Amino acid sequence: MLERIEHRACFGGWQDVYRHRSRAVDGDMRFAIYLPPQAEHQKVPVLYWLSGLTCTEQNFITKAGAQRYAAEHGLALVVCDTSPRGDNVADDAAYDLGQGAGFYVNATVSPWSQHYRMYDYVVHELPALVEQSFPVTNKRAISGHSMGGHGALTIALKNPGRYSSVSAFSPIVAPSRVPWGEKALTTYLGSDRETWRAYDATELVKLTHEKGANEKIPMLIEQGDADEFLRTQLKPELLQAAAEAAGYPLELRMRTGYDHSYYFVASFIGDHVAYHAAALRT
Amino acid sequence: MLERIEHRACFGGWQDVYRHRSRAVDGDMRFAIYLPPQAEHQKVPVLYWLSGLTCTEQNFITKAGAQRYAAEHGLALVVCDTSPRGDNVADDAAYDLGQGAGFYVNATVSPWSQHYRMYDYVVHELPALVEQSFPVTNKRAISGHSMGGHGALTIALKNPGRYSSVSAFSPIVAPSRVPWGEKALTTYLGSDRETWRAYDATELVKLTHEKGANEKIPMLIEQGDADEFLRTQLKPELLQAAAEAAGYPLELRMRTGYDHSYYFVASFIGDHVAYHAAALRT
Repeated sequence: MLERIEHRACFGGWQDVYRHRSRAVDGDMRFAIYLPPQAEHQKVPVLYWLSGLTCTEQNFITKAGAQRYAAEHGLALVVCDTSPRGDNVADDAAYDLGQGAGFYVNATVSPWSQHYRMYDYVVHELPALVEQSFPVTNKRAISGHSMGGHGALTIALKNPGRYSSVSAFSPIVAPSRVPWGEKALTTYLGSDRETWRAYDATELVKLTHEKGANEKIPMLIEQGDADEFLRTQLKPELLQAAAEAAGYPLELRMRTGYDHSYYFVASFIGDHVAYHAAALRT
Repeated sequence: MLERIEHRACFGGWQDVYRHRSRAVDGDMRFAIYLPPQAEHQKVPVLYWLSGLTCTEQNFITKAGAQRYAAEHGLALVVCDTSPRGDNVADDAAYDLGQGAGFYVNATVSPWSQHYRMYDYVVHELPALVEQSFPVTNKRAISGHSMGGHGALTIALKNPGRYSSVSAFSPIVAPSRVPWGEKALTTYLGSDRETWRAYDATELVKLTHEKGANEKIPMLIEQGDADEFLRTQLKPELLQAAAEAAGYPLELRMRTGYDHSYYFVASFIGDHVAYHAAALRT
């Protein structure tokens, strides 16, 4: 059951927000969907967006200005929350753990394992719901920011057939090796670091290479060089090195002067929407 | 003394926020300025933006997506707060009076008259400060949303020589005749309605006509027909009728399905930036 809670005209289409009961996370979830003007007459492909720490479905839809480009290219945008929410959902006082910080994993450690199943939600439940409820095709692309860039990269690497293309802004590319990621993965998955590899983009590129898998999805990463988290939490050079070693296609664009904010995302989201639109057409 | 409190790369330029001591309002004020890439090498004209009830300098700069268009056209954007602020500044518990609701007037009634002098701030102090501190020319345009649309229209009508062009989104065009305006003008100016005419766009158009003034600044108004305040607080038809009677140039664009939100502003701000850029070039 989908309940529409926001409905706003935007760039000739509609920016809506829905609430629904999620089986994956065993609770109510919200997501936003932008339907471009083209969706009035035909099914359109979908770009999924995953947001960063502390965000809800609101940040991207109010701050990134992506609707303009989605309307130009005829894509729907689907933006989910960053974790399960609610009084009965495990939480932590820190901004980088618990509600608002699901890290797009399926948690295996109690009490987190009851609701923190954002991986299943994003990969399976949400697309199925979106594709049965809205005028969209099953062509999908995925992008995200910071923790959501981590989510987009890991999800695309684990499911190359499900996405035409992946991109990320300021992503956490090696959560196993930075404080944000070590804290979250220890909490949600436990201390066996081998289990973390399935949720670490840099490790997944290495695993793909070790397995000799030949289905490679092109990756585009946008990174500001004045990003306050660049050297401590993001470290795109780790993924870049792994991609080079594995012959994995990665375009890393360093942008002079840009920080970690949505002003950075807004400045380049048009390029990313165009990139995904081209991949979705093929 | 200008103190820079935010500095963010954005569309090739810089989105900054400053704090300063204002003589006009006798207190600290904040404003945002977007300097487009062109400002690195030359002086650029300025589009002033006035926001609506409850807003600060943040709403427009985070939600409207105007920087992209300002960068395209080589305009600076200056966005001020909507009232004086602080513990020592008169306030009211209602969202539509006091802090966040200055209505761009010079208050004459105590205790409001001590700080609520947003008209002087916007018309005189802020442009003087901006023009002496940043690489901008003295060519100015002005726009705003809702209460800020009222501010932009009244300020431009009272100072046609100071602005090349004026536009407004969902403006309060006749504050003397709607609840928001009657409440604010009674509070800030007192019950003599004759004094309200100086802050009422519809009355100012009539006054201009009565005086036979021939300096007429073109007005562009964007209005959503699904705006929840259209019939109670905005009533653009009142200004339209006055403009027709006075032979005053007004383009009123009604937009099907759009509401009062920043999704509406974002959808059409590109047209307005282009409109002002053209006027500023002449």
